[in-house]
Amino acid sequence: MDYRSQITSPTLLIDEKICRANIQKMAEKAELHQLELIPHWKTAQSKKIGEWAREYGIRKITASSIRQAAYLSNSGWELIHIAFPFNIREIPLLNKLAKTQPISVQIVNTYTIQELAKNLTSPVGFMIEIDAGYGRTGVHMSDFAKIDEILQIASTSEHLSFFGFYIHPGHTYYKPDKELIYHETRQALAMLKTKYESQYPNLVTRIGDTPGCSVATDFGDIDQMGPGNFVFYDLMQVELGSCKKSDIAVALAVPVVDIVPERNEILVHGGGVHLAKDHLIEVDGRKNFGEIVILKEDGWEIPESRSFVKSISQEHGLIQASEELLNQVQVGDLLGILPVHSCMTADAMGAYLSLSGEWIDHAEEKKFKV
Amino acid sequence: MDYRSQITSPTLLIDEKICRANIQKMAEKAELHQLELIPHWKTAQSKKIGEWAREYGIRKITASSIRQAAYLSNSGWELIHIAFPFNIREIPLLNKLAKTQPISVQIVNTYTIQELAKNLTSPVGFMIEIDAGYGRTGVHMSDFAKIDEILQIASTSEHLSFFGFYIHPGHTYYKPDKELIYHETRQALAMLKTKYESQYPNLVTRIGDTPGCSVATDFGDIDQMGPGNFVFYDLMQVELGSCKKSDIAVALAVPVVDIVPERNEILVHGGGVHLAKDHLIEVDGRKNFGEIVILKEDGWEIPESRSFVKSISQEHGLIQASEELLNQVQVGDLLGILPVHSCMTADAMGAYLSLSGEWIDHAEEKKFKV
Repeated sequence: MDYRSQITSPTLLIDEKICRANIQKMAEKAELHQLELIPHWKTAQSKKIGEWAREYGIRKITASSIRQAAYLSNSGWELIHIAFPFNIREIPLLNKLAKTQPISVQIVNTYTIQELAKNLTSPVGFMIEIDAGYGRTGVHMSDFAKIDEILQIASTSEHLSFFGFYIHPGHTYYKPDKELIYHETRQALAMLKTKYESQYPNLVTRIGDTPGCSVATDFGDIDQMGPGNFVFYDLMQVELGSCKKSDIAVALAVPVVDIVPERNEILVHGGGVHLAKDHLIEVDGRKNFGEIVILKEDGWEIPESRSFVKSISQEHGLIQASEELLNQVQVGDLLGILPVHSCMTADAMGAYLSLSGEWIDHAEEKKFKV
Repeated sequence: MDYRSQITSPTLLIDEKICRANIQKMAEKAELHQLELIPHWKTAQSKKIGEWAREYGIRKITASSIRQAAYLSNSGWELIHIAFPFNIREIPLLNKLAKTQPISVQIVNTYTIQELAKNLTSPVGFMIEIDAGYGRTGVHMSDFAKIDEILQIASTSEHLSFFGFYIHPGHTYYKPDKELIYHETRQALAMLKTKYESQYPNLVTRIGDTPGCSVATDFGDIDQMGPGNFVFYDLMQVELGSCKKSDIAVALAVPVVDIVPERNEILVHGGGVHLAKDHLIEVDGRKNFGEIVILKEDGWEIPESRSFVKSISQEHGLIQASEELLNQVQVGDLLGILPVHSCMTADAMGAYLSLSGEWIDHAEEKKFKV
């Protein structure tokens, strides 16, 4: 049955072929550079898509919250790392999860490791998050006093094991020179490894961001890469040069509810609660909340003349439509929207529909059925 | 038990007293101006909060999607109006709902009413949405040919009843002169009423937007008001002059995971998937994704020195903290965040926790438990 016939309201489509190709490509890149690929599952948040990933040799993943980790636990992963500064209010849940699922957490201060050392009842690994210039979170790369203190406190607990250092160089998202950022990040991780590996011979270093992992050609002696967004990609990644539009693996299917030819506008049911509100800026200063694709039986097609979502409210999406699009669309038809930020769209939608018409799970489990 | 002790991860708090006061105030204003208050439930999306509203004489509500209407149906409402251009793919669901729940839909074109006339099997009311200057959606106020054609097609169906005209003057959100917008809207509705009331003696006119309904003093002979956001209000409404900060009825409780005193920063678990990404712009050009309040046993307190969320990612919120806040906060504490756009925050969170520690339902039903 054509997947389109089962869609009545906004629905997030996934093209399994594109998604698998993205995973395979990154797995091959990791292998080429002798890195272990440990993808950040904040984007996909899905057990089923996790099964696809394991077919490409991926054994460990990363979550961005303990809720995500709980959702993904005991579904076949050798290790789930929670790459968010650990929240000590969640120690009871961590103890519960760690009984059956190998798990590691991220540490950025001494107070948190102290609370873990005091209250853990199950084995838990940890990575120290390092700030090498992004400035969002992490121990400053040269704050050895803090790193030493974290390691010393951890060594008092039989349940804590130090795994290594983690850097998310998020400034690759807004600074043009990704090679320079990677150079600095490599140097920071190499320096830390040299300093601590005599004491911790198995320590690993990890870098994690899609723009950098997609384009970098030199990873030095970094051990692991942890990008997330690459499983789906999106328009922001196209703008950053990480991928092509045809690499985007998800599209929001939306019903057309009105057409205003005199303004070249198409109104669809598809708003901020579906797409989320991330946007790009067009050359003329207008906002772009997503680009239109034509839904076909076996996937979607990027039209030659571009149409995009120029404004959005809670449920409304207003499309600036090309003549070509206006001429082919009727009220009641479906259009597809390539998202600007697929992680947020997937989280807002909470489920995927495959092109063969099957529902694919997402941690938020908000499948659109009534 | 103190509600704070049950919070381990980001949780949307509701202060029932503030929420009830907002509903009561708007109900009194409606009564004063001889309007029927039919609130837009896109903000609250809750059956329980609906029970509170009925205590203030509210009998009918509005939904922004058929899913919301389905969620709210058969929970005590005399009528649910779906204030979104009707999506003909949802006719089967509409027929199902309309069997047990009085329901009305919104019409902006002839094709949709034609499809309804052909395929309805249960009685359904409709309002024609009018565009009187906002430009998002609706039949232009002077397009009588289209209005007449819609009414003519509807009259061929025994299931369709015309209820009246609906205007959402959404430009009150970004244009300063709300009185002028209301003047134009009143005139448009009065003109349409005069023109069509001989044929439809029971037709009503409705206006719906929180900024206007909060501050307008002249509603002319408009029959109904349909604001939504006022049940909670938010920082955007404070900026628009609709309310005071102390009128905001919801706050996101977030755990503190790191403190960086040298940068006056506090990192919390609370990001775009919790707050959504609407923001205000500070006078110095920085973004403001929400303002910090101090959580007390019986509610929250607005501190004298202001702290706000200056950047946000999927799960991270980075707070620009005042000295006062830095001096009183520890890793593991909870802070409150007043949202910039409460409709989006409530939709993202999918549940409320009351100050007495009870969970209150939301249509998205994404209660934060694992």
